[in-house]
Amino acid sequence: MDTLAPIPDAGHRAERFADGLLLDCGERLPELVVAYETYGRLNAARTNAVLVCHALTGDQFVAGAHPATDRPGWWEGVVGPGRAIDTDRYFVVCTNVLGGCMGSSGPRSAREDGRIWGPDFPSVTIRDMVRAQERLMRALGISKLMAVVGGSMGGMQALQWAVTFPAQVGAVAVIAAAPLHSAQNIAFHEVGRQAVIADPAWYGGRYFEHDTAPARGLAVARMAAHITYLSEEALARKFGRRLREGAASLFGDQFEVESYLNYQGSSFVRRFDANSYLTITRAMDLFDLAAEHDGDLPAAFAHVAARFLVVSFSSDWLFPTAQSRTIARALNRAGANASFVEIASDKGHDAFLLDEPVFHEALGGFLAGCAEREGVA
Amino acid sequence: MDTLAPIPDAGHRAERFADGLLLDCGERLPELVVAYETYGRLNAARTNAVLVCHALTGDQFVAGAHPATDRPGWWEGVVGPGRAIDTDRYFVVCTNVLGGCMGSSGPRSAREDGRIWGPDFPSVTIRDMVRAQERLMRALGISKLMAVVGGSMGGMQALQWAVTFPAQVGAVAVIAAAPLHSAQNIAFHEVGRQAVIADPAWYGGRYFEHDTAPARGLAVARMAAHITYLSEEALARKFGRRLREGAASLFGDQFEVESYLNYQGSSFVRRFDANSYLTITRAMDLFDLAAEHDGDLPAAFAHVAARFLVVSFSSDWLFPTAQSRTIARALNRAGANASFVEIASDKGHDAFLLDEPVFHEALGGFLAGCAEREGVA
Repeated sequence: MDTLAPIPDAGHRAERFADGLLLDCGERLPELVVAYETYGRLNAARTNAVLVCHALTGDQFVAGAHPATDRPGWWEGVVGPGRAIDTDRYFVVCTNVLGGCMGSSGPRSAREDGRIWGPDFPSVTIRDMVRAQERLMRALGISKLMAVVGGSMGGMQALQWAVTFPAQVGAVAVIAAAPLHSAQNIAFHEVGRQAVIADPAWYGGRYFEHDTAPARGLAVARMAAHITYLSEEALARKFGRRLREGAASLFGDQFEVESYLNYQGSSFVRRFDANSYLTITRAMDLFDLAAEHDGDLPAAFAHVAARFLVVSFSSDWLFPTAQSRTIARALNRAGANASFVEIASDKGHDAFLLDEPVFHEALGGFLAGCAEREGVA
Repeated sequence: MDTLAPIPDAGHRAERFADGLLLDCGERLPELVVAYETYGRLNAARTNAVLVCHALTGDQFVAGAHPATDRPGWWEGVVGPGRAIDTDRYFVVCTNVLGGCMGSSGPRSAREDGRIWGPDFPSVTIRDMVRAQERLMRALGISKLMAVVGGSMGGMQALQWAVTFPAQVGAVAVIAAAPLHSAQNIAFHEVGRQAVIADPAWYGGRYFEHDTAPARGLAVARMAAHITYLSEEALARKFGRRLREGAASLFGDQFEVESYLNYQGSSFVRRFDANSYLTITRAMDLFDLAAEHDGDLPAAFAHVAARFLVVSFSSDWLFPTAQSRTIARALNRAGANASFVEIASDKGHDAFLLDEPVFHEALGGFLAGCAEREGVA
């Protein structure tokens, strides 16, 4: 354990680790940068830290305005004063994942000689992301997290924390996630990557040298992904087969859903790097907790010590309930303390980001119980 | 009814209609060409004709080698001597749909002045496709079809036949279809269209004037669509998370599913026209049988006279069983004779094209019953 660092206030910052990070692929990243945000205050005993892990296209701005888009934090409904992840009680840390594009080491960051990594940035895994977060926790003087919480790819990180650093995490909330990335999900990712690579502004990933970006390909990738985040019910309710208002005729304009997806795709490319998109989707595709144990998931959980809350949403077809149930059963078989709850929702995978009171109550109650056991005021 | 035309033999051919076709969008196509194939022989009483309707990327080469790819017909397992659609007993006709690219009038065909239609080809509907087919039936001297059979978009055409030409069709088999295209399916189509339009070789749909084609965008579109045709089980069984044979390391090569999808995408663009892809996907998106009856599907079926077989596959998530059941219930409510069967299969939407003996038996039995009632030997 490193020497305890001063307790930071909330703010936009990054930590540099000059000794770098050895990655699962065998390469060593010469220098590691972990960009992060914090909310609330670390208590004197340093027992109230909650790490929030973001999803594929998320970032460290979990609550409070995003500096690039000026939009609210991506989990304002869950993280804040009096919320499920109560910033009046807990010290909340959220890092930009390794491979991301909001300040942490990734394809958009510079090598030691000043050149941009771009497509030469090494392949990373979910475990590499978690190792980078663990380095930050040590730098912040947090030897044990009260809890790690994450949805979707964030849930993969939360699971990986419990497996890789069992002594350093007291509780884990795994939301809308899976113990491995399914063939279907890999295939959807591959479509997105191919759309990026097919863009003439891709330039083999060296678009930044041509002062451009594969924006159209990335927009198509985002559109394809977006559909997988919504249930049929949510898509139909939002757009149905209604024509856009003011459409002159059945043939004169597009379906409303098309305009919406076009808009979503376009706003995304202004804030996200294409090489990061490829790097992070590949990390998700490689995720398979049981793989190192001949497919035996309970064996992967043999040494976990944390308490678990596993949450799924009934209409989530990207990370369906069956996969969450598989996690919970394997944890129980490994002797871990795991609760599983399926939230009735028709909002699809996106539900974990939206207003779902029953989910928020379950998560809030789980964390309050953890806090009580840890003696957090 | 036109004068009876001579009975054609099987062969690669097209029929021209100089008076054109008035389309649902209000435009008149100045000349209509319907390319088609036939299999088997029309009997003297002209009572044994079965029209097979193809799906989005299908064509008239339902059985026997495809002239462009030299691959077997797309429904060899269903259409042929002794098959469910028995060419020893029935005279099978399959047309290239209006808007297609295998000889029927479509974006790839020439206007009267010799210029290619391209993106100026008018919007077509499923009903327009069926009207074009009906013109061909009259030219072939077939005043009543023993049956119309189709899967996916072919099932939409089969339904439309029963509604638009109730006196001219004795039986209808609707396979893996729906009474309207869902919001989710429209959204998937839109991703594909955006991928095509994002290709720099698109040139506003005038790629043929630049002696090129948006092949990469079309490949991405096909890849995205292909995933929706397979169940998670089928994807996992075929590819799972296995790495491609000979992969040097976890990071040295792609997942097998990726190579497969790359290959599928590439082979598709050699035989399909991008403007046709846009035209036909839009026709599917606009399909909504109940729309002209204030959403009352039984009302849409009020005048149908045919017998119906409605078939779904249990793992088809693109055209799920619930939609087939909706069709069957509405038919029954309208007083029509409709049987519904859900085939247990883990092959997804693609099952209708694959070796599914129970499906083939159900379809064969249904048609044999129709033949008996019509007195077909």
